[in-house]
Amino acid sequence: VRKSPDHQAMRADARRNRDRLVAVASAVIAERGADASLEEIARRAGVGSATLHRHFRGRQALLEAVFQDRVDTLCALAQTLADGHSTSDPGAALVTWLRAVVAHAAANRGLGASLMLGAGQAESVHARIADAGRGLLARAQAAGVAQPDIDIADLLTLVNVISAATEQNPDLAARADHANRLLTLLVNGVV
Amino acid sequence: VRKSPDHQAMRADARRNRDRLVAVASAVIAERGADASLEEIARRAGVGSATLHRHFRGRQALLEAVFQDRVDTLCALAQTLADGHSTSDPGAALVTWLRAVVAHAAANRGLGASLMLGAGQAESVHARIADAGRGLLARAQAAGVAQPDIDIADLLTLVNVISAATEQNPDLAARADHANRLLTLLVNGVV
Repeated sequence: VRKSPDHQAMRADARRNRDRLVAVASAVIAERGADASLEEIARRAGVGSATLHRHFRGRQALLEAVFQDRVDTLCALAQTLADGHSTSDPGAALVTWLRAVVAHAAANRGLGASLMLGAGQAESVHARIADAGRGLLARAQAAGVAQPDIDIADLLTLVNVISAATEQNPDLAARADHANRLLTLLVNGVV
Repeated sequence: VRKSPDHQAMRADARRNRDRLVAVASAVIAERGADASLEEIARRAGVGSATLHRHFRGRQALLEAVFQDRVDTLCALAQTLADGHSTSDPGAALVTWLRAVVAHAAANRGLGASLMLGAGQAESVHARIADAGRGLLARAQAAGVAQPDIDIADLLTLVNVISAATEQNPDLAARADHANRLLTLLVNGVV
């Protein structure tokens, strides 16, 4: 069926509200953790609590949307970087993406644990992120600007533990600085 | 007072028993975790349970001795490496020591948590290990064979999270392989 222009406008509006709620929730959760106030999220998104609850049945549904959005963003970024930098600087493209992974993981602050993802779901998220990173790593290795024997799973393990090592710090900016410093160490190596 | 030769021999014997108990306990704990059987430790050390309990009031005292012994060993190793390699290959000396830190941490398998070290004790252990590593890092940096901007605290944070990332694996050899692979990645860097 053909939708009326009014209906389409309403749907576009609802879509914008939903997207804004996910973006604001992502920022608030990064700041306050997974138990951030839903009222504060609605307020900062400029909608009422009723609108938030119309889009998301509850906290769990909102957390899942935030998590999914972050994974989508990381995968899309890998694609963009692979398209844009593949010929110019594949080493820089890889490092840019790793910094984004650390930033996203640092922003998670226990979101993964709160979600209580099943083992299958967690595996599928890991596989999507590993697939996204594998292409960037392979291009950098083919160009001779990344260590040839690195495995993407090992690399992501280290990136994840860097985030875990810094997540106890309640100060968002200090946490990001610390995670970035540790990632720089990993990127440049010791010797 | 002057000790009789018999008394001295008995003391030397007791000392050897204690050292052997600590060494065997260290190996058994690496294999089975901090709740390893004290009977098995005594048996593998070739002494009776009564001898074990004469040297160590209980599990906690034995765990503390094992932990202390590992810290002493790491610090002594740093000194030996600094003396022996300072002019020849300070980069290799640093990496050798980092591999030992990972191996010791991997062998700990929750020993630190079981010990319930007070914050002050944990800090003092961290400070001793950081002091031991700082000298090796500084020599390698002065020789131009380690990245100049690395901080010993950041480096040890990464080494510790590498151990933490692998400690869930119940297979001792696989755990050591994994930790070594991640350390190689850290040592060589990504780009």
